[in-house]
Amino acid sequence: MSVSRRKVLGAAGIGAAGVAAISVGALALSDDSAEAAPSVTQPVAFHGEHQAGIVTPAPDRLHFASFDVITKNRADLVDMLKAWTKAARRMTAGQDAGPLGAVAGPGAAPPDDTGEAIGLPAAGLTLTIGFGATLFRTAEGTDRFGLADKKPAGLADLPHFPRDDIDAAISGGDICVQACSYDPQVAVHAIRNLVRIGFGVVTVRWSQLGYGRTSSTSTAQATPRNMLGFKDGTRNMKAEDGPKVLKEQLWVQPGDGPDWMTGGSYLVTRKIRNHIEIWDRTSLDEQEQIIGRHKGTGAPIGEAKEFDEPKLGEKKIADDAHIRLAHPSTHGGAHLLRRGYNFVDGSDGLGRLNAGLFFMAYQRDAHKQFVPIQRMLAQKDPLNEYIKHTSSGLFAIPAGVRDDNDYWGSALFG
Amino acid sequence: MSVSRRKVLGAAGIGAAGVAAISVGALALSDDSAEAAPSVTQPVAFHGEHQAGIVTPAPDRLHFASFDVITKNRADLVDMLKAWTKAARRMTAGQDAGPLGAVAGPGAAPPDDTGEAIGLPAAGLTLTIGFGATLFRTAEGTDRFGLADKKPAGLADLPHFPRDDIDAAISGGDICVQACSYDPQVAVHAIRNLVRIGFGVVTVRWSQLGYGRTSSTSTAQATPRNMLGFKDGTRNMKAEDGPKVLKEQLWVQPGDGPDWMTGGSYLVTRKIRNHIEIWDRTSLDEQEQIIGRHKGTGAPIGEAKEFDEPKLGEKKIADDAHIRLAHPSTHGGAHLLRRGYNFVDGSDGLGRLNAGLFFMAYQRDAHKQFVPIQRMLAQKDPLNEYIKHTSSGLFAIPAGVRDDNDYWGSALFG
Repeated sequence: MSVSRRKVLGAAGIGAAGVAAISVGALALSDDSAEAAPSVTQPVAFHGEHQAGIVTPAPDRLHFASFDVITKNRADLVDMLKAWTKAARRMTAGQDAGPLGAVAGPGAAPPDDTGEAIGLPAAGLTLTIGFGATLFRTAEGTDRFGLADKKPAGLADLPHFPRDDIDAAISGGDICVQACSYDPQVAVHAIRNLVRIGFGVVTVRWSQLGYGRTSSTSTAQATPRNMLGFKDGTRNMKAEDGPKVLKEQLWVQPGDGPDWMTGGSYLVTRKIRNHIEIWDRTSLDEQEQIIGRHKGTGAPIGEAKEFDEPKLGEKKIADDAHIRLAHPSTHGGAHLLRRGYNFVDGSDGLGRLNAGLFFMAYQRDAHKQFVPIQRMLAQKDPLNEYIKHTSSGLFAIPAGVRDDNDYWGSALFG
Repeated sequence: MSVSRRKVLGAAGIGAAGVAAISVGALALSDDSAEAAPSVTQPVAFHGEHQAGIVTPAPDRLHFASFDVITKNRADLVDMLKAWTKAARRMTAGQDAGPLGAVAGPGAAPPDDTGEAIGLPAAGLTLTIGFGATLFRTAEGTDRFGLADKKPAGLADLPHFPRDDIDAAISGGDICVQACSYDPQVAVHAIRNLVRIGFGVVTVRWSQLGYGRTSSTSTAQATPRNMLGFKDGTRNMKAEDGPKVLKEQLWVQPGDGPDWMTGGSYLVTRKIRNHIEIWDRTSLDEQEQIIGRHKGTGAPIGEAKEFDEPKLGEKKIADDAHIRLAHPSTHGGAHLLRRGYNFVDGSDGLGRLNAGLFFMAYQRDAHKQFVPIQRMLAQKDPLNEYIKHTSSGLFAIPAGVRDDNDYWGSALFG
């Protein structure tokens, strides 16, 4: 009935939502390295070898949700994952969450879409699912769904890092969904409808809104700035690094662990509060020494351009500069595909903005990539005086949904 | 030095921020009724008879901050307001907050801009200031700044409404600033730099991010949808209602109160949590009866088009339908210029999204406009089963800043 409602109304909706209409610059890359960049109104393909929302150039709005599974019934969980997949397939195409739609009534049943995205285009929406360690075995050791044998070694708990101040209530979770879009209303609508569909099976454990990224996962776009005011993502792994790098660093390969994870990736989330009021009272010179880059151009200290190679062999860049500590050469080439967003969660009751970076990074093996980098940063980075890690998550991101008959988690549950 | 940095880098920045480039449709209205609609990248004029950000067509991102004044020194407060005005004048023009800029160093002093908006255009930024009752006299009765005699009757405390569940920690405040922009990074940057400049004089009491409005304050644009999935703002006061209506209902007139408020307005803020999980399990029919409108078209029950006049004399629209209770004809013609935003503040620890409407309404006299409307809604609206008011604010919004020598609050403090 209303299958095409959102598309039909799309043109009017652009004005209504103020959705951007400039093209982000279409990329034409091999399937193995990246999808074409979405325009700010167009859909991103839902099916594929890998899930969308990883190498897809990041649109600048995020709604990330982590769920606790509250059913003990495996079949109910699988049914919900199938229903979620159908809804995700529809919503990423710019359609209502269900086939009846938001305004199918009147009738006694609630509508199968909540309606606030009526008239809005797909707006580059991607929905990316992941599974946390507790889905396989609870913290108390219970194997609720007969999945314990399938838990990959890559999902072993992250270690405690020095200075960690992790709040368990906004960390972890059995299932996560990352919704990215050019329109926050579209991203929120998607998560909200998954919550609605999951009623009785999952509850929201925590969720996070973010903004301010339009991709540092592709060379086609400028590098965005974080709440420290610096360009962030200059050295990020990029789609254009090509299939060899992505295979080596991003996608789980056959033999890495259980078969069901092949073609997937691991996502680390860290909510990093910035003490921006203190940072803002620090001199430019000190800020630049801490980061190891010039604030204006983003160039490494002593260089002229953002993408100039930092001269780590020289003394211009401090021994403990952030870019030196995090540089792949410091960690045997380990690299991350970062996809974080800035956040502001109001204020903290002490007169300060509660703001910072919701860090997200995809990688082939978090224990070989994120962990050694973060261990060094946690020990040595002078930036630690200005930041605090307050939440942490590690999720196994399965490979892509193949076709209309496939569903999120099929390789794990099938 | 870097005065024009943001403008120079603007073109590149559009790509970086994914800022929309469609025009919102320029309006050409009399000065007395509305400013021209800003494009999504262009600046909005800061000087004028009234403050920008009221009848200015609302861009779809909000960062609202309420401040407590912590100094007891009137001169320090006035100096800060002058410094804020200078920074606001610059930032709304797409410039760094201060004349040196974000990258003026290296030097021992912190930069006079925090840098995260480098490369971003003005993006329609408006900054609108207001003064709360406690600035004039604290809750304990202290007249800290010799302003008690100037407190307008219009700032008398709002009454307690039935079902109110107001959290004082996120209510009220001595000073508020509303930042609206097409780019959340630009809105957040503006508030953050005001916080930085106000260090030692003010602290942030509470702040709120919002999204999802591209104006229902002008007929030039489609009506956006709230988290209930309904069009919200169909009957809103609009710039096109013309000078007579705006004079009668929006702008404080000579003789209404103390002279310093002439040309100003009163802002009511209410954070309205929506119990969306419960709403989402309600039938379409029931939702439409509660609101009194069709969800798809936004038309009044029984009518075909959004802007058709509701037939309140007929029984099709329930006696307690929201649009009947709130209709101006129910309140002697009292009307509001609403400018609210949707919000999602993560989740609430009980498995539910913490989401709803950050209601903002401008008016000539809140006690004659908002109060009677809200009293009736609080008593009779069946929507109350699905919503909860959790914060409340009332602010006196002074007239506009006239020119480069004028400052926010000059009429009050001068």
